[in-house]
Amino acid sequence: MITFDDITSAAERLTGVAHRTPIATSRTLNERTGAQVFAKCENLQRVGAFKFRGAYNAVSRLNDEQLKHGVVTFSSGNHAQAVALVGRLLNTPTVIVMPNDAPAIKLAATRGYGAEVVLYDRVEQKREAIARQLAEERNLTLIPPFDHPHIIAGQGTTALELLTDVPDLDGLIVPIGGGGLISGCCIATHALKPNLRIFGVEPDTANDAYLSLQKGEITSTPQSHSIADGLLPTAPGQLTFPIMQQYLESIMLVTDEELAAATRFMLLRLKLLVEPSGAAPIAALLAGKVPNVAGQKIGVVLSGGNVDPGKLATILTSDE
Amino acid sequence: MITFDDITSAAERLTGVAHRTPIATSRTLNERTGAQVFAKCENLQRVGAFKFRGAYNAVSRLNDEQLKHGVVTFSSGNHAQAVALVGRLLNTPTVIVMPNDAPAIKLAATRGYGAEVVLYDRVEQKREAIARQLAEERNLTLIPPFDHPHIIAGQGTTALELLTDVPDLDGLIVPIGGGGLISGCCIATHALKPNLRIFGVEPDTANDAYLSLQKGEITSTPQSHSIADGLLPTAPGQLTFPIMQQYLESIMLVTDEELAAATRFMLLRLKLLVEPSGAAPIAALLAGKVPNVAGQKIGVVLSGGNVDPGKLATILTSDE
Repeated sequence: MITFDDITSAAERLTGVAHRTPIATSRTLNERTGAQVFAKCENLQRVGAFKFRGAYNAVSRLNDEQLKHGVVTFSSGNHAQAVALVGRLLNTPTVIVMPNDAPAIKLAATRGYGAEVVLYDRVEQKREAIARQLAEERNLTLIPPFDHPHIIAGQGTTALELLTDVPDLDGLIVPIGGGGLISGCCIATHALKPNLRIFGVEPDTANDAYLSLQKGEITSTPQSHSIADGLLPTAPGQLTFPIMQQYLESIMLVTDEELAAATRFMLLRLKLLVEPSGAAPIAALLAGKVPNVAGQKIGVVLSGGNVDPGKLATILTSDE
Repeated sequence: MITFDDITSAAERLTGVAHRTPIATSRTLNERTGAQVFAKCENLQRVGAFKFRGAYNAVSRLNDEQLKHGVVTFSSGNHAQAVALVGRLLNTPTVIVMPNDAPAIKLAATRGYGAEVVLYDRVEQKREAIARQLAEERNLTLIPPFDHPHIIAGQGTTALELLTDVPDLDGLIVPIGGGGLISGCCIATHALKPNLRIFGVEPDTANDAYLSLQKGEITSTPQSHSIADGLLPTAPGQLTFPIMQQYLESIMLVTDEELAAATRFMLLRLKLLVEPSGAAPIAALLAGKVPNVAGQKIGVVLSGGNVDPGKLATILTSDE
């Protein structure tokens, strides 16, 4: 059971370590969406994503013995880099399990933070099993990407800050990968503003949380593709699912085209680089998929800003 | 003679109309440059560039009769859009003289603000002559892009805000097109911090201000090309040149490759879209071309953020 106290405790721990990210507003965005949008810029967070919050909160709570041995995680994305940076800051060894077909630039960035990268074969092996085996063999602590109380509490500080800066929000829209970010945000928001409407967004090709809410139980989807590469976990977590079930008004599904258009809009109009996963709430708003937002004060979490340059170039030129 | 009072007067006029743009800082940028960099985000200004400041200051000072007839300017870039938006805000007709080979997207954006666009042939005609003729025939007031006291004073509010927010700067680096921005910044800076070091940056292919300072007189260059398309005027102005001559420590020249690298750095690391012209100070810093900045507090003006998506895609993929 994760409580509001866990989130305020995480916030204390993050003070002076994580960036207190700014909130962007835009006349054009308001005109185009009909809402008054307040965008929490986690693309400007350390390592370029909210993931730093949870990783730091989790790793910094380990005891000296655990920190001496080190931590392990499985991720090819922002969580990997977050754990690697946190390891460097806290002087603890980090091992990151990544697929052997991960982009060279991501491998280099992760190693650049001083992490040891263990490669695995996506087809033959399960990354979580490898991480668990490494943890056992080498006495490492596993820091999972989303389904962990300290991770969820850390991510929840995002909504805590947003609601401190804009206390009179009517609604909040958050991207859903495994649900760590939105779960933490739900708990913070419910404590501060019990009636605030909370929405999730998923790619239509990776709608595991959407299906899970519909069926009332955790439901897996096959591994899928989307330009929102941070939103591709195939099932919500044991911890995150019941929180989403309790607090979400609904989940909207967006297409790759809508994600690309939102990414372009944020870049060309607001001059902010937001990765497609992070632009999902904007995609839902611009596509008119969020019910009854006209004139309302809507918070959105721009969850990250890490995009491969070649992929970004493709997104920029895919608008005919 | 433009004074500090002209700048504070412009600042009053701009309050609540122009954005008070934020100042970006970055650990990574500091590590890579050796300086402590404070970047004034005029890419987040209205119309995506500092040009809004001067245009609003100039047009808003016209009398009712002048406003009724309207204004004219010549520009294919940010000044055109700034004048067009200011015209809409002040309910005055605007005529923009643009080359007939200007990108369709720029024509559309300028017309989108409600301006009348008059096209001319780059090879056959002189844009300034056309604008002057239109002004005479239709009783319009000419709002030149840089060499005008109200334009210079308006642009100077950029440095006024920067020095208000970061009063202990040691140096300031500003891109030079026609010199309107840097001249206004020189006057504001000299009044507030007489010993602050001020540097200009130009593309090495459009080094008219550099040559002019070297020769001690206004010197023209042939029309040139650079990815910094906002910095291509072929000579400094009658008003801006003596101000630059009086206050600049030096002008650095940067290559297109350095401009592209700085644009990529700001985008991929700081998550900010800065156009190549606006990234010129960062290009000079990253290339190690600014003398004695180690450990110093250096202000830079990120002058704009308007880039054609195709051109941006090319910049993103031009790094082998």
